[in-house]
Amino acid sequence: MINFDHKRIEEAYSEINSKVVKTPLITNDYINKLTDNNIYFKLENFQITGSFKYRGALYKIINLSKKSKKNGVIAYSSGNHAQAVAYASKLNNINAKIIMPNNAPKIKINNTKKYGANVVFYNPEKESREIIGETLAKKENRTLIKPYDDYEVMSGQGTAGLEIASQLNEFNINPDIYICCCGGGGLIAGTSTYLKYSFPNIACYSSEPEGFDDTSKSLSSGKIQSNSLSSKSICDALLANKPGSLTFPVNKLTLSGGLVVNEEEVKSTIITLAENLKVVIEPGGAVAAAAVLNKKINTKNKNIVVMLSGGNIDQEMFFDLN
Amino acid sequence: MINFDHKRIEEAYSEINSKVVKTPLITNDYINKLTDNNIYFKLENFQITGSFKYRGALYKIINLSKKSKKNGVIAYSSGNHAQAVAYASKLNNINAKIIMPNNAPKIKINNTKKYGANVVFYNPEKESREIIGETLAKKENRTLIKPYDDYEVMSGQGTAGLEIASQLNEFNINPDIYICCCGGGGLIAGTSTYLKYSFPNIACYSSEPEGFDDTSKSLSSGKIQSNSLSSKSICDALLANKPGSLTFPVNKLTLSGGLVVNEEEVKSTIITLAENLKVVIEPGGAVAAAAVLNKKINTKNKNIVVMLSGGNIDQEMFFDLN
Repeated sequence: MINFDHKRIEEAYSEINSKVVKTPLITNDYINKLTDNNIYFKLENFQITGSFKYRGALYKIINLSKKSKKNGVIAYSSGNHAQAVAYASKLNNINAKIIMPNNAPKIKINNTKKYGANVVFYNPEKESREIIGETLAKKENRTLIKPYDDYEVMSGQGTAGLEIASQLNEFNINPDIYICCCGGGGLIAGTSTYLKYSFPNIACYSSEPEGFDDTSKSLSSGKIQSNSLSSKSICDALLANKPGSLTFPVNKLTLSGGLVVNEEEVKSTIITLAENLKVVIEPGGAVAAAAVLNKKINTKNKNIVVMLSGGNIDQEMFFDLN
Repeated sequence: MINFDHKRIEEAYSEINSKVVKTPLITNDYINKLTDNNIYFKLENFQITGSFKYRGALYKIINLSKKSKKNGVIAYSSGNHAQAVAYASKLNNINAKIIMPNNAPKIKINNTKKYGANVVFYNPEKESREIIGETLAKKENRTLIKPYDDYEVMSGQGTAGLEIASQLNEFNINPDIYICCCGGGGLIAGTSTYLKYSFPNIACYSSEPEGFDDTSKSLSSGKIQSNSLSSKSICDALLANKPGSLTFPVNKLTLSGGLVVNEEEVKSTIITLAENLKVVIEPGGAVAAAAVLNKKINTKNKNIVVMLSGGNIDQEMFFDLN
């Protein structure tokens, strides 16, 4: 049974709305002309810690029991969830340990440390972060803050969708399509649930990088499918191996299908967004925009909402894109 | 006599507010910790045509007489005013001729042409854009849309300040300091007028690049001072040779002083803003932030409003900064 709906997202928002950035939803004449439609970009790169992950981590953490808060938390993440858990813990005086791959972007490692967390590295080619996380959680009596497969985390992440709905309503815009990046599927599960509730006729699509299109494949077959373990991608935020056991049943109900983009499309999208929208977006945060700009779906004359989920790209990689 | 006050800005906003982007005012935990204060950045890089200039150009152009609209307009500009006049003209079916320096950033030249204007180049080292503009205006019977020294243009540009005031009030923030870039002084005249009206105790400062600190010098001496003609700067948007005859009397009343930043400070600020604020800002748009980040003024524990006026930086220059 799915124990998740728009009400949980509203509940989460009532608790965190004064503590998160109500990120802008913006449109851009030039990009609209390029694509023959109206795109509304949700700028979660402006969220605290540089990505939407802060919404879910904060909501989860402030609702822990006193005892759990005292014992501390643990999380595994390539970086955006890591920063979010570290910062939300710091603000709430909770000890945080974060398990990060040794090849995570430097900006994400540095920020996670800067936010006061104790960082433990692992080798993503040889070790499983889930097993390390669960083992350490048990041993040190810490609460594991999962990156997506948790209804509270999904509810917190879904508050970005509640904001989108209120921003669209403010301008009387009726959206036709919503496209969102998808790693483990927490953000898209939460936001698509809220958008489907607010705009029942909206069609929602996931966007994933080549090699990590597990949600796309799973949506097609109706069953959870995994990626090949040998895949690589610059989209470090989207490397979940398969859809979550809580997120996928939700996404199966809310999504109309899955889109896939390649590395060159992601890179050129980051440049287009910098040059025209004037924003800095990380690879994983740009895949939804890449799907529209590369016409992976017919969006002509439609109102499209595109999630730009984060902006934590290493300075070296960013300035080397051109 | 100064025929300019907050009411003119409110009048302008009532005419253009549905046609411009209400640009976000955002703050960033990391930058605040770095500088020991609370900075609120006004993101005019998200304005239509990529800078605040659209506000003034649009307001001026929609208020032209029928006859003037039919005869067409002319403007001189290194690029942001050019794009703004070109685009506002295009939307209002007005013929536009724009005089641009032959060394203007490519992004600005290309956009101005893309917006349908007829671009005429001049050599900024040998020719005067003011003389070319006035001669052509007379010969072709076109209305000259000045970049700053015009009360209607200043009123339109000042609407960014009206938005800042309403955004600060929304969150009950009382600003201590406002810092804004300054070329000819139109944006700062308009916005400081409105902010002084809304928050009488706010201290307003101009920020200028080295070699083009004419407003700073003029504020010190109380009289209009010019720059040396041999100066050079990457801040192409701020190369006015001296303060405007309408803008300076206003700025003399509203400003507490002028700050000056050097080229290295501007470049490192653009990188800091990209890495932490996740926005793309052009050199001229970054000088106010550069003044705060390089502690040109004591801002400790204060609420600072910083104008980020535009984002039209050439892709090559931007990606070459690191």
